[in-house]
Amino acid sequence: MPLEAGQAHYLSGVMRQKAGDQITVFNGRDGAWLAQITEAGKRGGSLDLIRQSAPQQDPPDLWLMFAPIKKARTDFIVEKAAEMGAARILPVQTDFTNSERIRQDRLQAHAVEAAEQCGGTFVPAVEDLQALSRLLDGWDAERRILWADEAIAGPAQTLSGLMPGPWAILIGPEGGFSEPERRRLSALPFVTRIALGPRILRADTAAVAALALWQANLGDWRKVKQDESDI
Amino acid sequence: MPLEAGQAHYLSGVMRQKAGDQITVFNGRDGAWLAQITEAGKRGGSLDLIRQSAPQQDPPDLWLMFAPIKKARTDFIVEKAAEMGAARILPVQTDFTNSERIRQDRLQAHAVEAAEQCGGTFVPAVEDLQALSRLLDGWDAERRILWADEAIAGPAQTLSGLMPGPWAILIGPEGGFSEPERRRLSALPFVTRIALGPRILRADTAAVAALALWQANLGDWRKVKQDESDI
Repeated sequence: MPLEAGQAHYLSGVMRQKAGDQITVFNGRDGAWLAQITEAGKRGGSLDLIRQSAPQQDPPDLWLMFAPIKKARTDFIVEKAAEMGAARILPVQTDFTNSERIRQDRLQAHAVEAAEQCGGTFVPAVEDLQALSRLLDGWDAERRILWADEAIAGPAQTLSGLMPGPWAILIGPEGGFSEPERRRLSALPFVTRIALGPRILRADTAAVAALALWQANLGDWRKVKQDESDI
Repeated sequence: MPLEAGQAHYLSGVMRQKAGDQITVFNGRDGAWLAQITEAGKRGGSLDLIRQSAPQQDPPDLWLMFAPIKKARTDFIVEKAAEMGAARILPVQTDFTNSERIRQDRLQAHAVEAAEQCGGTFVPAVEDLQALSRLLDGWDAERRILWADEAIAGPAQTLSGLMPGPWAILIGPEGGFSEPERRRLSALPFVTRIALGPRILRADTAAVAALALWQANLGDWRKVKQDESDI
């Protein structure tokens, strides 16, 4: 199979790989494959696929919605969400969001890199920035929202009583949500509000913590009874 | 009370505060205090304490042990551990740790900054780098160790059956622990081994995820029954 110019340059120029070397590749749909480089130069190259080395492993149906913050922390949230097994990443514009726009292509590249670094076979799609209010206007009520509300410092609500299924985690911007946003979120029947402990967390910390609690209670970090009996 | 030169410079030069301005200060022991600046220059200054604005709030008796990695990610682990409520942070040298030394003073400053940013009143002590093997030689068996073992990818062990009390979370370096280290850790009666899901996590991600699960199950993120009846 042929390589794009950017891929070929990365292989030969950055990773110093040459024809005959073996590498692992993935496309996000067909698992990981062992491949041999047949040609690698600055402008192009090609691979031969040898065999599948790992099956495709998709994350649970979990989205992460967050309000973009400073560049480095936004990059960080995308990287961590990919590692933690979010299936889709939605940057949202809230009343107190500072960013007018994001570099969607750069964030998507961060998600790809995180999957590469962590041996993943799935890359979450990073959407372009959209207004939270419009996203909620068209929301499918089948997907529940786990709202990490920094305004209620206190014990984390236990997630053990919640039902698995399609979910989206919502993390606010620094400064939290506006009063109109808070009223709307509180009134939505598919929103569950949780606190993340007694200390104020930065948005990037809150994102990783909420993803961990969700995965352990409702996602693929759970011990599923059937799995246990299979072992 | 007098200010040190560094504090005075930060106040006047960086934060642009001047005599008469009010600020919030904390020393890690006595809660947060509203204070008025009586003098602030490049080389010195002073404050008058007005009143306590928040009580001292200490985290649970939880340590975080981690093997230092790249500089930015090590900084990040310390910042996140301070936010997430670790009481003490211990960088440890393992068989596969790259760092020979760390800048303890810089890491401690990061912990202070994290507490400031998040409105905390407690700053975890950041210890100097020490060998994991020696640390385990002198370990007090009353403190249990939660070992996040990246070698067992799979469902996260549920932490709900574990006893609260003094704990230390142990996060390995990129590349994991050596076989001798793994044998020793596995044989220690006070060590509980957990997996953090089916995907490989970077060390900094694993630290935040493990802290979140511990806090929610054994720490001060829990809903404590007594608290609920008090409300």
